[in-house]
Amino acid sequence: MDLHYAETPNGWKVSICLEELGLPYRLIRVPLDQPRTPEFLAISPNGRIPAIVDHDAAEPIAIFESGAILLYLAERARRLIPADTVGRSHVIQWLMWQMAGLGPMAGQNGHFRLYAPEPVPYAIERYGNEVHRLYGVLDNQLARTGAFIAGNYSIADIACFPWIMTHKKQGLSLDDFPALQRWFAELRARPQVQRGLAAGKGIDGMRNNDMDAAARARLFGWKAAE
Amino acid sequence: MDLHYAETPNGWKVSICLEELGLPYRLIRVPLDQPRTPEFLAISPNGRIPAIVDHDAAEPIAIFESGAILLYLAERARRLIPADTVGRSHVIQWLMWQMAGLGPMAGQNGHFRLYAPEPVPYAIERYGNEVHRLYGVLDNQLARTGAFIAGNYSIADIACFPWIMTHKKQGLSLDDFPALQRWFAELRARPQVQRGLAAGKGIDGMRNNDMDAAARARLFGWKAAE
Repeated sequence: MDLHYAETPNGWKVSICLEELGLPYRLIRVPLDQPRTPEFLAISPNGRIPAIVDHDAAEPIAIFESGAILLYLAERARRLIPADTVGRSHVIQWLMWQMAGLGPMAGQNGHFRLYAPEPVPYAIERYGNEVHRLYGVLDNQLARTGAFIAGNYSIADIACFPWIMTHKKQGLSLDDFPALQRWFAELRARPQVQRGLAAGKGIDGMRNNDMDAAARARLFGWKAAE
Repeated sequence: MDLHYAETPNGWKVSICLEELGLPYRLIRVPLDQPRTPEFLAISPNGRIPAIVDHDAAEPIAIFESGAILLYLAERARRLIPADTVGRSHVIQWLMWQMAGLGPMAGQNGHFRLYAPEPVPYAIERYGNEVHRLYGVLDNQLARTGAFIAGNYSIADIACFPWIMTHKKQGLSLDDFPALQRWFAELRARPQVQRGLAAGKGIDGMRNNDMDAAARARLFGWKAAE
């Protein structure tokens, strides 16, 4: 299994999932500050990480979009998602919620808080409020289940975790969200999660944050949601 | 089947899908300018439309997030998604791309172009550029397949269609994207698509756009991505 990777929340989702499933994988660095190569675009037509190539499938299959990768891996392993229709849909609903809501909105919040070349108070307030609301939705759900997002531990938890982990950088706090705090501490303590987060450590160029201002400027314009 | 609904791109996805599958459904209006009721939040914990309740399942199942609904309906009907692993994943990849990229970014573009109470040129440029880039990604894919997004007609097409249909309102054009134009005309001509788009017509309060400025102001703050 090849994992085309950089150290970002969406990248971590997949390295964590692969560690949870105990599947061996090879990290392939995608330099986010450079134009994408034709080889990479053939694997990931949107030009974003993460993407995987599963060489162990009947014929090699390339998959882009972190949510599609998590669902593929879980179904391949028959783990981290229930087999019954209702349980399965429950996991997929929260996976979609992360993909369509928590991820993009936290991405915009991070952009306007950390990277935008000019301060835009309206956007900082808009996205800060929305991410706070989304944290509340997740907190309610975790209080309801008393366990993980969709009951048992699943790819829905793995998808949400990196976007909660980055809350301080995003100017947000978990203080108002006791169930979210409990869940976050539980996930962070998992050795598989720790290994997934450490997967790219020490490999030159894996970190988005290593970029200088000029690289960031080149990047801007075609990475609004990364 | 109950469809909790308003006339928005995400609402249309589901009415179109239900028309394509020939499944009978009952529209239930969700007034977007009013606080959500506890009954609705029990069905849709994120407080957004669309959501469905399938009363024909072994036990009634509530589903929120348009992408999760489309996947559930397609798998239930064994149509609009292939059964084999590779074909299925291909559809899911583009469904995720719509949910995580095209939808949220076009949503932000629409907000800053049409609804934001103050002009934010930086945000208008940011999201306009990003949606233009995403249109280009879809155009490339449609040129490659020469048919629909993932080969055969699928829920990936249904998910993307309403977000392309609204291009004029979004200040965007399809002029640069011949394959996208071809695909768009083909989908728009389908009677099922027409019926899905017309589902809420003439029902009072179904249209987001019917709201006055005060209602929009009340709405703002908890609908960043709707």
